[in-house]
Amino acid sequence: MKLKLSLFALLCSATNAFADSAPKNIIYMIGDGMGPAYTTAYRYFSDDPNSKEVEDTVFDTILTGMAHTYPDDHTYVTDSAASATALSSGHKSYNGAIAVNNDKKPVKTMLEVAKERGMTTALVATSQINHATPASFAAHNESRRNYDEIANDYIDNKIAGKLPVDLMLGGGTKYYQREDRDLVAEFKAAGYQYSDDFAALNELKQIPALGLFASVGLPYALDENPTRLTEMTNKALELLDGENKRGFFVMIEGSQIDWCGHANDIACAMAEMDDFAKSIEKAKAYVDKNPDTLLVITADHSTGGLSLGAHGQYKWETEVVKGIKATAGKISDALLATENLKSVWQTYTNIEFSEANQIKLQQAKKMGDKALELAVKDIINHASFTGWTTGGHTAIDVQVFAYGKGAEQFNGSQDNTAIANKLIEFINH
Amino acid sequence: MKLKLSLFALLCSATNAFADSAPKNIIYMIGDGMGPAYTTAYRYFSDDPNSKEVEDTVFDTILTGMAHTYPDDHTYVTDSAASATALSSGHKSYNGAIAVNNDKKPVKTMLEVAKERGMTTALVATSQINHATPASFAAHNESRRNYDEIANDYIDNKIAGKLPVDLMLGGGTKYYQREDRDLVAEFKAAGYQYSDDFAALNELKQIPALGLFASVGLPYALDENPTRLTEMTNKALELLDGENKRGFFVMIEGSQIDWCGHANDIACAMAEMDDFAKSIEKAKAYVDKNPDTLLVITADHSTGGLSLGAHGQYKWETEVVKGIKATAGKISDALLATENLKSVWQTYTNIEFSEANQIKLQQAKKMGDKALELAVKDIINHASFTGWTTGGHTAIDVQVFAYGKGAEQFNGSQDNTAIANKLIEFINH
Repeated sequence: MKLKLSLFALLCSATNAFADSAPKNIIYMIGDGMGPAYTTAYRYFSDDPNSKEVEDTVFDTILTGMAHTYPDDHTYVTDSAASATALSSGHKSYNGAIAVNNDKKPVKTMLEVAKERGMTTALVATSQINHATPASFAAHNESRRNYDEIANDYIDNKIAGKLPVDLMLGGGTKYYQREDRDLVAEFKAAGYQYSDDFAALNELKQIPALGLFASVGLPYALDENPTRLTEMTNKALELLDGENKRGFFVMIEGSQIDWCGHANDIACAMAEMDDFAKSIEKAKAYVDKNPDTLLVITADHSTGGLSLGAHGQYKWETEVVKGIKATAGKISDALLATENLKSVWQTYTNIEFSEANQIKLQQAKKMGDKALELAVKDIINHASFTGWTTGGHTAIDVQVFAYGKGAEQFNGSQDNTAIANKLIEFINH
Repeated sequence: MKLKLSLFALLCSATNAFADSAPKNIIYMIGDGMGPAYTTAYRYFSDDPNSKEVEDTVFDTILTGMAHTYPDDHTYVTDSAASATALSSGHKSYNGAIAVNNDKKPVKTMLEVAKERGMTTALVATSQINHATPASFAAHNESRRNYDEIANDYIDNKIAGKLPVDLMLGGGTKYYQREDRDLVAEFKAAGYQYSDDFAALNELKQIPALGLFASVGLPYALDENPTRLTEMTNKALELLDGENKRGFFVMIEGSQIDWCGHANDIACAMAEMDDFAKSIEKAKAYVDKNPDTLLVITADHSTGGLSLGAHGQYKWETEVVKGIKATAGKISDALLATENLKSVWQTYTNIEFSEANQIKLQQAKKMGDKALELAVKDIINHASFTGWTTGGHTAIDVQVFAYGKGAEQFNGSQDNTAIANKLIEFINH
């Protein structure tokens, strides 16, 4: 009996310790496709070649552990929907699932729990806001490809009689202003301030609000605005700050790290990493000012089989990567539109326009835009000694970073569902 | 003045806390080439396909952080010598350096410090014992390729008048019994028990001792003894246990994870990982029985640009990997020696002997042993959806695992030199 009482006391004290560490606000950031090769690459990409030491990145200051990403089968390689479902709900599911289980039944997400608890909720992404990762927090669907249905769910899926998400910043007008349904009009009718003009981001002054700044995803960081996620993060935290005494939950996704990975475009990926890292710095600064806030960052999986060093060479040429001024898609478009390949090449890269490169580009141009884009990437990857194994995902564990109140809960090796379960427990306290 | 005193008190208390956590014994294990893709792969390779959950590995139970591996230049990709020098001495150096700095001057290693402090010292490896990683703990040389000079150093490099290493288990008779010098005779004369018979491992009964069980490296785990590192680890801990009231320092290397990675041979790598994991389990059990012991495990770098999932496919076929019964080198030797390719293929793999595979093997066989080995690996990698980008190393951060007294010092993101510096500080306390 004495033993039982002690055990009870121990359990109570453990439970109370968890409750005591429960934060008021949660900032959950997901680097889509951001496996450990990406954070390593970003450190060396950011390194000052004139200093002897390699400078730490913001990731290095808050690493706490790693996470397993396998979906609910024995393929081991997840897609963004299954992993976002695990990260939002604590439930493993099949590839393609948007917050539904293997039987295609809805599973409750932490954003829904937060809404039930009276917290303010927000989603920020550089993809369309109804893309797999944000979708798995606020919608339920058997397939990530049902973009229209998912967008509908953001207004139809009421939580405690209310719309699930109070603030949304991302892309997706194509899915919100459709012939069959004008969701933008519906959101406005529900009291949301609406904007589709990124330049007017600062004119968003209230919650609820909806900002859709592109037809689908926002332009790549490398091609247009290198800090659009940083600016949206800043705006979201400004609007959320002090808005609700019950606190807020926001999920912020660096969506296009993954897209650059699928494209095997290293300069594209580094620009997305830079925007994500700067967004993390904003979030970290918010935690410093508001110590009752928890910041947790992870990735859903890694993309592309990226390696730094390739083809037997013991080096990764960051100066080549830093010298690339546009995505391979934009460079090949410019090469397609010109007779002067050399001039365009030298505008966008610092790689020598050698005879071999010239011939390669000329031959690929004759074969069309896809072949030309592949040739551009092939030259960049060879010159920088960047390796890739796939246009898809890989199963490698991803990193977990945490900062602020309750961060110590995310130490060590953990399953991606465990991250969600701990956050849900925090929200429930 | 008050501030100064407080600061002093704070420093003292921090120093004392560090001293209080200093372990008596240190077990330092290095998985050569064991980047995060290898520990992830090993979890899924070890997974029971009949259970819904994926079982944790020993690595999952003790992950504490990650380490940066870059050498002392801006190539970012290290070799085993530079990283072993960082891990043994806390000094970054150039690729190829064996415990010397960029000016080729010797840097003191933790094994040398341990010897000076009167601890018993040991090195265990599946490579030749004078290979880059163990060498960087007990010898100094401007080049890892000077194998004879390095072997000489194990007897010439006296620490406080004594030989640096009290127990060595690995391969390397070729370097120890040479025409110009018989180091084995010298070790025997110095009181070392000597064995070159792995089957008689249990007959090693004393320290000092030297066990050299192969001409160069030991045979691959997959081809011969799958637990030779586990057995050597067990023997080393048995001999070291209680031997010296000042404690012991042992470095145990899973040397050939790297060699399988260079060969892009996934089944070979998984067998080496299994032997290394089982060795870790022995070390962990030792810590459980001797809580004044610290176990730290890391890798020097990752090898091969391994990815789980490749060529756009969202799966990694562990059953294919588990079905491979020998290294690609051994399989191709067997294929070379037979007219019945099908029979040999089905002996060593569970991959279908399809018409395409048959033609591929037949054509490669005509081109010789190297082409045949490449063809064997190509079929295995395609069937298992395993990707590789290089026959060399990559710059990705590696993991850090720690268990036992002082383990909390190895949390988070750290430089590989920081691991060494903390261990040296522990040894000095």
